[in-house]
Amino acid sequence: MIVAMKPQATEEQIRAVCKKSEAMGLRAHLIYGVERTVVALTGIPGQLDPEDFESLPGVAEAIPITKPYKLASRETKTEDSLIQVGLPDNPVTIGGPELVVIAGPCAIESREQAFAAAASVRKSGARLFRGGAFKPRTSPYTFQGLGKEALEILAQVRQEFGMAIVTETIDPENCALVEEYTDILQVGARNMQNFSLLKRVGRSSRPVLLKRGISATLEEFLMAAEYIMAEGNYNVILCERGVRTFADHTRNTLDLSLIPAVKRRSHLPILVDPSHGTGKREKVIPLARAAIAVGADGLIIEVHPQPELALSDGFQSLHPDEFESLMEQITAIAGVVGRTTVRSAPSPSGTIRE
Amino acid sequence: MIVAMKPQATEEQIRAVCKKSEAMGLRAHLIYGVERTVVALTGIPGQLDPEDFESLPGVAEAIPITKPYKLASRETKTEDSLIQVGLPDNPVTIGGPELVVIAGPCAIESREQAFAAAASVRKSGARLFRGGAFKPRTSPYTFQGLGKEALEILAQVRQEFGMAIVTETIDPENCALVEEYTDILQVGARNMQNFSLLKRVGRSSRPVLLKRGISATLEEFLMAAEYIMAEGNYNVILCERGVRTFADHTRNTLDLSLIPAVKRRSHLPILVDPSHGTGKREKVIPLARAAIAVGADGLIIEVHPQPELALSDGFQSLHPDEFESLMEQITAIAGVVGRTTVRSAPSPSGTIRE
Amino acid sequence: MIVAMKPQATEEQIRAVCKKSEAMGLRAHLIYGVERTVVALTGIPGQLDPEDFESLPGVAEAIPITKPYKLASRETKTEDSLIQVGLPDNPVTIGGPELVVIAGPCAIESREQAFAAAASVRKSGARLFRGGAFKPRTSPYTFQGLGKEALEILAQVRQEFGMAIVTETIDPENCALVEEYTDILQVGARNMQNFSLLKRVGRSSRPVLLKRGISATLEEFLMAAEYIMAEGNYNVILCERGVRTFADHTRNTLDLSLIPAVKRRSHLPILVDPSHGTGKREKVIPLARAAIAVGADGLIIEVHPQPELALSDGFQSLHPDEFESLMEQITAIAGVVGRTTVRSAPSPSGTIRE
Amino acid sequence: MIVAMKPQATEEQIRAVCKKSEAMGLRAHLIYGVERTVVALTGIPGQLDPEDFESLPGVAEAIPITKPYKLASRETKTEDSLIQVGLPDNPVTIGGPELVVIAGPCAIESREQAFAAAASVRKSGARLFRGGAFKPRTSPYTFQGLGKEALEILAQVRQEFGMAIVTETIDPENCALVEEYTDILQVGARNMQNFSLLKRVGRSSRPVLLKRGISATLEEFLMAAEYIMAEGNYNVILCERGVRTFADHTRNTLDLSLIPAVKRRSHLPILVDPSHGTGKREKVIPLARAAIAVGADGLIIEVHPQPELALSDGFQSLHPDEFESLMEQITAIAGVVGRTTVRSAPSPSGTIRE
Repeated sequence: MIVAMKPQATEEQIRAVCKKSEAMGLRAHLIYGVERTVVALTGIPGQLDPEDFESLPGVAEAIPITKPYKLASRETKTEDSLIQVGLPDNPVTIGGPELVVIAGPCAIESREQAFAAAASVRKSGARLFRGGAFKPRTSPYTFQGLGKEALEILAQVRQEFGMAIVTETIDPENCALVEEYTDILQVGARNMQNFSLLKRVGRSSRPVLLKRGISATLEEFLMAAEYIMAEGNYNVILCERGVRTFADHTRNTLDLSLIPAVKRRSHLPILVDPSHGTGKREKVIPLARAAIAVGADGLIIEVHPQPELALSDGFQSLHPDEFESLMEQITAIAGVVGRTTVRSAPSPSGTIRE
Repeated sequence: MIVAMKPQATEEQIRAVCKKSEAMGLRAHLIYGVERTVVALTGIPGQLDPEDFESLPGVAEAIPITKPYKLASRETKTEDSLIQVGLPDNPVTIGGPELVVIAGPCAIESREQAFAAAASVRKSGARLFRGGAFKPRTSPYTFQGLGKEALEILAQVRQEFGMAIVTETIDPENCALVEEYTDILQVGARNMQNFSLLKRVGRSSRPVLLKRGISATLEEFLMAAEYIMAEGNYNVILCERGVRTFADHTRNTLDLSLIPAVKRRSHLPILVDPSHGTGKREKVIPLARAAIAVGADGLIIEVHPQPELALSDGFQSLHPDEFESLMEQITAIAGVVGRTTVRSAPSPSGTIRE
Repeated sequence: MIVAMKPQATEEQIRAVCKKSEAMGLRAHLIYGVERTVVALTGIPGQLDPEDFESLPGVAEAIPITKPYKLASRETKTEDSLIQVGLPDNPVTIGGPELVVIAGPCAIESREQAFAAAASVRKSGARLFRGGAFKPRTSPYTFQGLGKEALEILAQVRQEFGMAIVTETIDPENCALVEEYTDILQVGARNMQNFSLLKRVGRSSRPVLLKRGISATLEEFLMAAEYIMAEGNYNVILCERGVRTFADHTRNTLDLSLIPAVKRRSHLPILVDPSHGTGKREKVIPLARAAIAVGADGLIIEVHPQPELALSDGFQSLHPDEFESLMEQITAIAGVVGRTTVRSAPSPSGTIRE
Repeated sequence: MIVAMKPQATEEQIRAVCKKSEAMGLRAHLIYGVERTVVALTGIPGQLDPEDFESLPGVAEAIPITKPYKLASRETKTEDSLIQVGLPDNPVTIGGPELVVIAGPCAIESREQAFAAAASVRKSGARLFRGGAFKPRTSPYTFQGLGKEALEILAQVRQEFGMAIVTETIDPENCALVEEYTDILQVGARNMQNFSLLKRVGRSSRPVLLKRGISATLEEFLMAAEYIMAEGNYNVILCERGVRTFADHTRNTLDLSLIPAVKRRSHLPILVDPSHGTGKREKVIPLARAAIAVGADGLIIEVHPQPELALSDGFQSLHPDEFESLMEQITAIAGVVGRTTVRSAPSPSGTIRE
């Protein structure tokens, strides 16, 4: 149930709606829009009567929501969500006109490697830095990340290069450590339905980058976001990274049609990861262009100073000069879809934007 | 086996290579490149010795091909194939710098409908006109197309609007009739491995638009093209139209990563069909932009003067004004990937082209 | 629309129903049940009023059918269809209590090979003989079957071993030749939506073995059967042969849950092909057992006298002694699911049958 | 690397091998076979020289393993693993000649429901009792299980009915509580690549029932088992429960070909879950029969005293009398594949066993 307050509703009236819904065993979530405030009610499903709320003062209307996801739905919030990330002196907004590119190596291997990667991707226009500290790997016998040592290197990168950090957390217990260091908590594709982890990051103050599971439907993906939001963390950034199909010319099949489908159903921003989405270096740039053209809010790209020496996923990591070329190309595409990148000329003349 | 002739090889020397290979039970295909001629040998596989050909006068070298497709392979022909279509006074090249858009209704329903569609898509910049005469439908009880009557309407569209025609042929017997009327023979996704039909269109003088089967791998797709080429028709235009997956937010999952994969392995041009690829009108334009951004050579788009009245696939057909918007948007994207459309300003300044 | 006649309805009354429906532009199909006759009406969909028929003499009731397939539906015919095949002195019924096993090599390679295969599979209990004359192959450069020569060998096998023959027809033109020689026309998986071929075999007097397409849904499969039946050939035998998925431990994923799903929705018999369904010799016997246990009406099995020398699919063909073991094992399973094989003891005591 | 000891090797010699491998930074796992002991070495991959171990006294040979999974591989242990579960006065062996059926409701809803279910499934021949206490659900707003209260009910069921208990653990923290109550820890399909949870149950003394992820390849499945075994818990029971495909006649596509594929590559036992594997009540019994026929070591079946009132998955739960019928049918099939159930007559005469 969505309870839409009148534009002139007072804080007290809003609190009254929350109090009533809590008395009914529901949880009230406040969604502040530009024009008015909405109270979204979640909890044990059952028959709720709009009348129960429409009779309260300050309430414009109470609307049952038909989708199984409520907080993530455009029915609840029609405006795009803007997620504020970045550092105080380098603020970044995900979901706004600026396309945000997150770049860095698959795994942090050493201070030298991380600094070399950070220096090059920052110069080319990446706004946030990514790098794995804890790596979920198919085999127990392969490199699993440097762990805490990597987190400390990431903190040094933030300090030195002024870039906010994105790194993955792999279980609820591990989350406390990772959130001390990172600016955005990443939940990997294999954990998209690890509901204990979703609930844990839902109680964090950090925004969450949620990757689509390898065979998740759109509804399952939005329900995973809903798990996080239902705990009170509304700063969820979705990420398409390819699905598993019969096709064998790429490691996964990047499903770009998901982007307009998400935009229609949800107010959350969505990025595309063409590195995992294709698993092949030479396809990263063409698919990055396509992702921007289709309407994604940004990209997450693996870049390694020396891909051929990478401890993981080297075959899909870009060379720094390839990443420079990628940024140049997507900046050009951004212009024609009415978006900008940090490299855009001051006044973009593009006019195509749905 | 590929027999590369020396640049100065004479016609007589080339004929000698062909004669020898035919004497060995093989078929010789002549591929004329800008710099030199190549003789591709196909036939019963077996041990061929490069020596057998390298000893002939005019031969530069004989190279075994490792891929199961030979004539479709970039190993055989490194330059992009340019397919000449269109009418004498309105020539069109598929695979060159100009992006070619084919548009029209799913099925020809009447002269009025076809003419209305043709007038609008031509004005917006479509270069060829599509429309189904024989429709392969899942149910025997649904509209199967107007057949010969539709072919005659298509001939009138060609006459009246000066646009070349693309329509589907559904079996070897039907092919003789269709090729009398059409400029390009379309082989539909369900027939991608109808080898009798592939062989028949391989003996036609018309270029063939070959759609990817709903669960075809890249290799199977190129092998289907090879079937056509092995009969002597080298004018094959590939078309990605979505594959079947578990995902349910679109009718099919458009696999745009196929485009760079095809460009790497084959010299044939490839179009994208976002109408069938998504099955939903509102996703056609975003995916059309993405298709151009990823490097496709053009698009095939369903446009109906009144989609809500269409006898088939109305929910995925664009309104004429939506198609006008599509053409405007992809013309802008074309500019930044170093391509043009018929609507482009005379000197495109785009510089991104791999 | 299904028009159910009263048990005592006369032939003349039935003819009157047919005449009326034909006057309305529909086609009438007579389905003779044990107790009463049903007239199934197919044709251009539209609003039909049960009243139009229920007012005719001899009509019990007229029932609109909700499924897109009508003739193939259990709504039209509640009793299992029994397909009579086999030779006059060796009659075989598919769909009855006896499980029918069709066996033989992937392709007919020579008279010797065919005779050796036939002798061994007959001895082990195969009731029909299979062998490819025209082989649809992914590559134009691989063995495509011996064609007419193979058909003649098959005719000799029928003569010599008294077994009815199953072989594939690959296009409408080819069908005339194949039906001269074969007892059952096979339509391969790649041609499941080759509607021209489906219509052609629908006009044949031979029963049709229809294989499921590699990514066909159940509804598409039954609609393909409907295409054949709508032309008047009601003797359709379905066959599950594996679908394409991400799984890579078998060539295809055999979908045995299709069997009870077909039995629920359709009266047509269904066989299972574990040879193509798994693509690996060592999995054929276990999956054959499972197919019988799940309720299939029989099997189609590739057997080659010397699999290691086979010109096609040798890796999935059984040795004759493996086939002997298969027959022994499925005869044992048949007993417990209330079915028999030709090898069963006279009075099977099995009692499990849904 | 596998170090196979000589049959007469002493404990001291075995310890020497362990000590040496630990000195090299590896972990040694002792596998006691009937005839001899094997030491499996896992750890950071790298070049190991068989010579390093073959020179030690008591060592028969040192064999590099080519598969990425080592402890789960048949190369390491050729005999089938037998997992001892059950209670002291009701011991059960999974992987031996007796087929083991685990049954019970999807979720524990009340003491009454659990007791009613337990009484009926025990009477019909279930050997272990299943019931969810913590339910991973797609939506945060649906019933998530009774938690600790359910665990206590399960303990009462064990006490009252003498059946060992199987229930799911959903995260590493939750595992400590669940293992206090349960006899077998279940890891659900969504958590098959939750590596933190796999490592945690790998350090438990309870056997683990590991369900295949919804789009896991065979190799990924065995690697997940390897994660558990690499921590020292070798009592892993695999379970096939259907994969995600395009097919829509069942909720998932049960992949029975996995069973012989697992048997070939691994020594671990494997069960089949036809309840989740099909998601439809009427398909559970036919697929259960097929699972036994294909060679599974047992089944896990959802049974609810009143499926129509179930809080979760009622549409796939069997009525108690349907479960009775299932047990009767699979007991008959068991006989012919050389296996028994608890209901089998004393001396099964079946002779088919590979």
